[in-house]
Amino acid sequence: MPMEKYIVIHGPNLNLLGTREPEIYGNVTLDQINKMLYQEAKKFDIELEIYQSNFEGEIIDTIHKNRECAGIVINPAAYTHYSIAILDAIKGVTAPVVEVHLSNIHQREEFREKSVTAKGCIGQISGFGAFSYILGLKAIMNHTRNIQY
Amino acid sequence: MPMEKYIVIHGPNLNLLGTREPEIYGNVTLDQINKMLYQEAKKFDIELEIYQSNFEGEIIDTIHKNRECAGIVINPAAYTHYSIAILDAIKGVTAPVVEVHLSNIHQREEFREKSVTAKGCIGQISGFGAFSYILGLKAIMNHTRNIQY
Amino acid sequence: MPMEKYIVIHGPNLNLLGTREPEIYGNVTLDQINKMLYQEAKKFDIELEIYQSNFEGEIIDTIHKNRECAGIVINPAAYTHYSIAILDAIKGVTAPVVEVHLSNIHQREEFREKSVTAKGCIGQISGFGAFSYILGLKAIMNHTRNIQY
Amino acid sequence: MPMEKYIVIHGPNLNLLGTREPEIYGNVTLDQINKMLYQEAKKFDIELEIYQSNFEGEIIDTIHKNRECAGIVINPAAYTHYSIAILDAIKGVTAPVVEVHLSNIHQREEFREKSVTAKGCIGQISGFGAFSYILGLKAIMNHTRNIQY
Amino acid sequence: MPMEKYIVIHGPNLNLLGTREPEIYGNVTLDQINKMLYQEAKKFDIELEIYQSNFEGEIIDTIHKNRECAGIVINPAAYTHYSIAILDAIKGVTAPVVEVHLSNIHQREEFREKSVTAKGCIGQISGFGAFSYILGLKAIMNHTRNIQY
Amino acid sequence: MPMEKYIVIHGPNLNLLGTREPEIYGNVTLDQINKMLYQEAKKFDIELEIYQSNFEGEIIDTIHKNRECAGIVINPAAYTHYSIAILDAIKGVTAPVVEVHLSNIHQREEFREKSVTAKGCIGQISGFGAFSYILGLKAIMNHTRNIQY
Amino acid sequence: MPMEKYIVIHGPNLNLLGTREPEIYGNVTLDQINKMLYQEAKKFDIELEIYQSNFEGEIIDTIHKNRECAGIVINPAAYTHYSIAILDAIKGVTAPVVEVHLSNIHQREEFREKSVTAKGCIGQISGFGAFSYILGLKAIMNHTRNIQY
Amino acid sequence: MPMEKYIVIHGPNLNLLGTREPEIYGNVTLDQINKMLYQEAKKFDIELEIYQSNFEGEIIDTIHKNRECAGIVINPAAYTHYSIAILDAIKGVTAPVVEVHLSNIHQREEFREKSVTAKGCIGQISGFGAFSYILGLKAIMNHTRNIQY
Amino acid sequence: MPMEKYIVIHGPNLNLLGTREPEIYGNVTLDQINKMLYQEAKKFDIELEIYQSNFEGEIIDTIHKNRECAGIVINPAAYTHYSIAILDAIKGVTAPVVEVHLSNIHQREEFREKSVTAKGCIGQISGFGAFSYILGLKAIMNHTRNIQY
Amino acid sequence: MPMEKYIVIHGPNLNLLGTREPEIYGNVTLDQINKMLYQEAKKFDIELEIYQSNFEGEIIDTIHKNRECAGIVINPAAYTHYSIAILDAIKGVTAPVVEVHLSNIHQREEFREKSVTAKGCIGQISGFGAFSYILGLKAIMNHTRNIQY
Amino acid sequence: MPMEKYIVIHGPNLNLLGTREPEIYGNVTLDQINKMLYQEAKKFDIELEIYQSNFEGEIIDTIHKNRECAGIVINPAAYTHYSIAILDAIKGVTAPVVEVHLSNIHQREEFREKSVTAKGCIGQISGFGAFSYILGLKAIMNHTRNIQY
Amino acid sequence: MPMEKYIVIHGPNLNLLGTREPEIYGNVTLDQINKMLYQEAKKFDIELEIYQSNFEGEIIDTIHKNRECAGIVINPAAYTHYSIAILDAIKGVTAPVVEVHLSNIHQREEFREKSVTAKGCIGQISGFGAFSYILGLKAIMNHTRNIQY
Repeated sequence: MPMEKYIVIHGPNLNLLGTREPEIYGNVTLDQINKMLYQEAKKFDIELEIYQSNFEGEIIDTIHKNRECAGIVINPAAYTHYSIAILDAIKGVTAPVVEVHLSNIHQREEFREKSVTAKGCIGQISGFGAFSYILGLKAIMNHTRNIQY
Repeated sequence: MPMEKYIVIHGPNLNLLGTREPEIYGNVTLDQINKMLYQEAKKFDIELEIYQSNFEGEIIDTIHKNRECAGIVINPAAYTHYSIAILDAIKGVTAPVVEVHLSNIHQREEFREKSVTAKGCIGQISGFGAFSYILGLKAIMNHTRNIQY
Repeated sequence: MPMEKYIVIHGPNLNLLGTREPEIYGNVTLDQINKMLYQEAKKFDIELEIYQSNFEGEIIDTIHKNRECAGIVINPAAYTHYSIAILDAIKGVTAPVVEVHLSNIHQREEFREKSVTAKGCIGQISGFGAFSYILGLKAIMNHTRNIQY
Repeated sequence: MPMEKYIVIHGPNLNLLGTREPEIYGNVTLDQINKMLYQEAKKFDIELEIYQSNFEGEIIDTIHKNRECAGIVINPAAYTHYSIAILDAIKGVTAPVVEVHLSNIHQREEFREKSVTAKGCIGQISGFGAFSYILGLKAIMNHTRNIQY
Repeated sequence: MPMEKYIVIHGPNLNLLGTREPEIYGNVTLDQINKMLYQEAKKFDIELEIYQSNFEGEIIDTIHKNRECAGIVINPAAYTHYSIAILDAIKGVTAPVVEVHLSNIHQREEFREKSVTAKGCIGQISGFGAFSYILGLKAIMNHTRNIQY
Repeated sequence: MPMEKYIVIHGPNLNLLGTREPEIYGNVTLDQINKMLYQEAKKFDIELEIYQSNFEGEIIDTIHKNRECAGIVINPAAYTHYSIAILDAIKGVTAPVVEVHLSNIHQREEFREKSVTAKGCIGQISGFGAFSYILGLKAIMNHTRNIQY
Repeated sequence: MPMEKYIVIHGPNLNLLGTREPEIYGNVTLDQINKMLYQEAKKFDIELEIYQSNFEGEIIDTIHKNRECAGIVINPAAYTHYSIAILDAIKGVTAPVVEVHLSNIHQREEFREKSVTAKGCIGQISGFGAFSYILGLKAIMNHTRNIQY
Repeated sequence: MPMEKYIVIHGPNLNLLGTREPEIYGNVTLDQINKMLYQEAKKFDIELEIYQSNFEGEIIDTIHKNRECAGIVINPAAYTHYSIAILDAIKGVTAPVVEVHLSNIHQREEFREKSVTAKGCIGQISGFGAFSYILGLKAIMNHTRNIQY
Repeated sequence: MPMEKYIVIHGPNLNLLGTREPEIYGNVTLDQINKMLYQEAKKFDIELEIYQSNFEGEIIDTIHKNRECAGIVINPAAYTHYSIAILDAIKGVTAPVVEVHLSNIHQREEFREKSVTAKGCIGQISGFGAFSYILGLKAIMNHTRNIQY
Repeated sequence: MPMEKYIVIHGPNLNLLGTREPEIYGNVTLDQINKMLYQEAKKFDIELEIYQSNFEGEIIDTIHKNRECAGIVINPAAYTHYSIAILDAIKGVTAPVVEVHLSNIHQREEFREKSVTAKGCIGQISGFGAFSYILGLKAIMNHTRNIQY
Repeated sequence: MPMEKYIVIHGPNLNLLGTREPEIYGNVTLDQINKMLYQEAKKFDIELEIYQSNFEGEIIDTIHKNRECAGIVINPAAYTHYSIAILDAIKGVTAPVVEVHLSNIHQREEFREKSVTAKGCIGQISGFGAFSYILGLKAIMNHTRNIQY
Repeated sequence: MPMEKYIVIHGPNLNLLGTREPEIYGNVTLDQINKMLYQEAKKFDIELEIYQSNFEGEIIDTIHKNRECAGIVINPAAYTHYSIAILDAIKGVTAPVVEVHLSNIHQREEFREKSVTAKGCIGQISGFGAFSYILGLKAIMNHTRNIQY
């Protein structure tokens, strides 16, 4: 029996992590987050694929291509607040999706408080830095396997 | 004399048609819609090219490349509601453009009621499922040829 | 077997067509549009009745009286934007309704962009001048007969 | 001494009652409601006149003509939400007016939550189906006669 | 040479004048205002026709029927604030139109401050009681004849 | 067979009734209203319990404790306009709830026009002073027993 | 017995009249308007003083200094839309004030539709070019002398 | 060395869990959630105290009393959306706070989309049913101990 | 003759003063403020009672119980911005009320700029730290005794 | 050592005090207020200069000229609500500024509830008539001298 | 041939430059900016006149007096955001106008993001400190002379 | 020592320049603007790279790739008004960025007045046609080199 495959999608500007506005996003780089995620995947014996893109269209394509995976953890970054197109992609696939954010979106500019994309997700986790991704992975596995982690 | 060339552009997530939220968008696939459109084109003896893209930029490029065609039928899908860039593309070319929607945009979430892109179009047709495209094609040909279909 | 009966309802001020603000509404008169519609009806072998009224109450009455016809094409004109009473009439009858507009409502004053009445209709067609009515007729017949025109 | 005369006015689309959107408005017809009202009138020994109109102007005329009756129970239906003209009619007569609604206006679309016409009434009763009218009649009699029912 | 014909249109509830909310609208009756207007008409040697209606549709019809008169003075009363249909009627005829109000619309409820109908008029006069009509008549004659009164 | 039990809940500041802003709320005291309600209960042979509290939390507790009673008449007073917590309590119990108000909420400050709590109720009665409670009791009994009073 | 004194106040930028945006304000100069006004004053045998200022404070001072004159006709121009200070000056004096505008404020930019200053005036006249001032003078004299002109 | 103490606070109406609107909140009871939390606490060798209250003031008091605990997981339920007082309590203590919700607040009524209280928290987790609390506990421990779970 | 009794009410979270967000609220504790207030009371020979509560209901009860005292100084803290219930309590008693705030409410988050409760007070003093209370006491005594301090 | 100099600035229309809208502003004249202020100054042994102007620019100049005085008490009157220029002047000088109002700005028209200028001040005092100025003087001296009065 | 004359107008509070909020506006004084501007003028062989005023009316007068100069560079400072009167002055003269700002208006308070006055200008330059003026001068000369600098 | 490298980024639809809506954007083509920019670069002895893209993601990538260049001049065109993703890219790099626009964004549709992207830039220049780019280049060089041009 093949392992369940989970997907992590990092949205725009997250490739800059570690150098970009560290007072908001911290010093951890995307590579370090990805390493953490692969270790976590190993621990839970799942297959994990990670994508990053600054293109709204590419994020939509990635969601489509993985439409039948076991679950998607997505940080849509800036697209969170206006991309109805990503929302439609999320609602259009059967894979369950969890939205995560490094910073607490309720503590920043007013336009970051609203999530267009979360309307299509199971739930949202925001404010715990890199650990938001780990929680997101646990949440999606809990949803899929109905097991607590 | 060469045939008049018309263009149909399908926006983001329309490649999922038939599987995506069938209670809203129906069971017809994009291939089936395209077949219907090619038949219609044959009937009226016009050349027809069909594009689909999830990338806002690619949709803009497609509009630019066909800037002098006889007419464009576009379903900007989610981009309808926020893409000022596609609006500017539509206003920037001489080809006339008709906007079509599968579902009735006035019956859904409030943010889908407003069309940014229709401001640059001749008119808009929404709510008739796949038949919206056929009506759109008739509308654009009527506009170009000043003949009723 | 009697012919299917379809209804066309012209809303307020449309009796002035041809003289009223021709830069927006064109030079075609209501009589000319009606002639076009009767020809179309003949072509498709349907019975067609056409009404015009400047009275909101009379439009409601007309919808009620034809509550079981095969389909209604309505141009509610100015009432489009505020008549909850016509919306309720449309939702209160079993006949399917299609909304049409001569001009593109997304290109005019902001208060014309919103349609209260379209919330009760199958779909909406706007911006193609007199041809909007022809498209509306095709759309309603397609809906009723499930045939393409 | 003549009997006190009370008036009931049914607004637009209420003539369709029983067939129109029964999941919202129930299966009772307007005739049945009127019978209930006449029985109630008999019980309390009052004269009762009942009107229905889909015309905003006719509703205003009815209010004017009965400007000195003992009390008016009105269900302005869709006009509730935008008819400043009916509001002005209510404020312009000495007869006290009570507004009633079949459905609970606070549980439906946002545009039905606001009442323009209730600003001129003694009070408003909404949500109890046909029984709203009976309560309205009791309320207006209580106001006029200062007796509890 | 026939006399120039001018029209005065009184909107909804103005038939109640003199009894309706006299603290806002004063004690003058509509008959008294009409007498004043006929005297004024005599003084200036013009033909004057006066209409009153509580029906939005009838007001539109009256505007249409007089579409080529020398000028229209209208008090749309409550319809001022929401009747896009009357606005369209005003814009659809060649006769110049002046809007008048008995009370100062800027001193009352916020929803009375905005005029939808004045967008189609030459100008607006509000706040001078019955004298607003006299000023309106002078204004429209000044516009038509280019003479000062 | 035990008598059906009904509950009346008076919200904040209603204990002051009779002395508080009598030009809005009248001179009747809460004791007098309660006496009226007990008489009414006797007349209809029902058990009646009456509560008053200025605490949002206590009102929620009272609703929970009576979650299976035959019906609740509540005047949430100021909490009407912002207590999502009371709304959730109402929606969380099986007992049907009717909202009543002494004054007409549509005639006062704009922030009193909106009811958050009525979204969870069967219906709302407002503007008839103490008699609003009697009507509320009739309405809830009508709902429960399906009998007219 | 001294003649009644009336005041006309021209607000900011009106000194440019005749050269400034003639498509909106016409070609008449302020001198020509003033001449018209003096002639009118002569005709009615009143004393007339005319002021123009681009300074909000100076307009307030002028209103104060003439606080007991027979009446003030003011065109607050741009200050109409935001000067609460001029509104307070108008409300603070006993002299009645009429507001006039050359252009129809309901037909221009949205921010010109609202009048802050008219809230303190008897009434407002807008849209009749220079003739607005003549109508304003008649209106204020009618108010003061209770005579029709 | 004493164990670190963590606090869980359940807001209004959560005592009804399992019976209240199960289609939104599921069938799990509060007792079952608390058992899960105590097991989790045991697993991580921490002291855990759990509170529930329908009183805004009591929730504030509970936060104050535990102002120096190792961390607080709070589900403010309905108070999330308007209690500035709870926000101030959260900001006024040194204990870090994590906000959790059973349902996805971005998928419900618009007034539930905004979180007033999350502005004072480290982060927010919403949409995972009872598992939201487990994730919240992990998040707060991760924050305090800087360890991943 | 008994001394006049004045009341001071501290709203939610003020018990934390001195430790809570000292950069906004300063280092003074509530005890120190109360001492200052008792000294001031002594100086002016008045009786002073001081209350603090985090419960909206308890603040309402306290206002009711002291409904006939010489004056109330209240800092409703967070409740300032949404408690219509406290506003109603203030308006429902005869004791005059002055609202005070430690910080300047016009310099903080936008939602703190608006005061619901001040609508029922004589006046408001905000921004002077603990000294706001002293000024409030002087203001209320000045109001009651008509003497300057 | 020279005495500390304090400044009082009265904004537009305050020169009319005593005659202007006495139901709102009372019967005290500006001279009487100034006398009260000079007496207060004498009592506290400070130098006091008082200005009044209806000109926004002159108020700005006065603030600039006194930019290093011990403190400024300002009643910006109508300018409170829109003068960003006075706000910038207040923020541009080192002298501390206290804003005072005769009437309670939270009890009047909605546009008077917001203070643009208070954003640059230490605090604001509103609603105590002439006594607001005395409180303002005490507040600014308390701020400067750190002494209680 | 006389030299072309250009005008620079500094709006309210700019006379304080160098001392006022240096973290926003920098340490350069107005004298230093003016010197820079005169040097620049010399370099380009143009006549330059510089004005500063805190009075809205005086700024309008200055624009009027120079209505035929070669170009105006204006920093309306706080008036940018609300002075329709200055906008009207700019639109009323033939001299082209360029708006400049020291700070980036898109990075500050929301009310500074909108420019009322720029609606009448050729363009706007904001965010470059004193250098904004130099760029403004180049822009206006480029516009007038159609030469690049 | 290598030359400083500067970047110019042209946003969506700017490739159409010269043909697209020339009444707004002029007749200059993008090639001509680029030539002007290269000449300017030569004059100042800097290295210049120019990019154009219709893809939001590609613009973000270009900003990232040049994150350490001496300065970026960007015309985000339509993306200006909604791309939080480009804003985040600008804020995420150390290279200083200047925003330029061909047309005056304050003179067009209301939705073009707001700049999301300028919040991350040093400043913004809009309205001077192709010359806006030249001014932008001078501005960025002035910022980097602290020299005036």
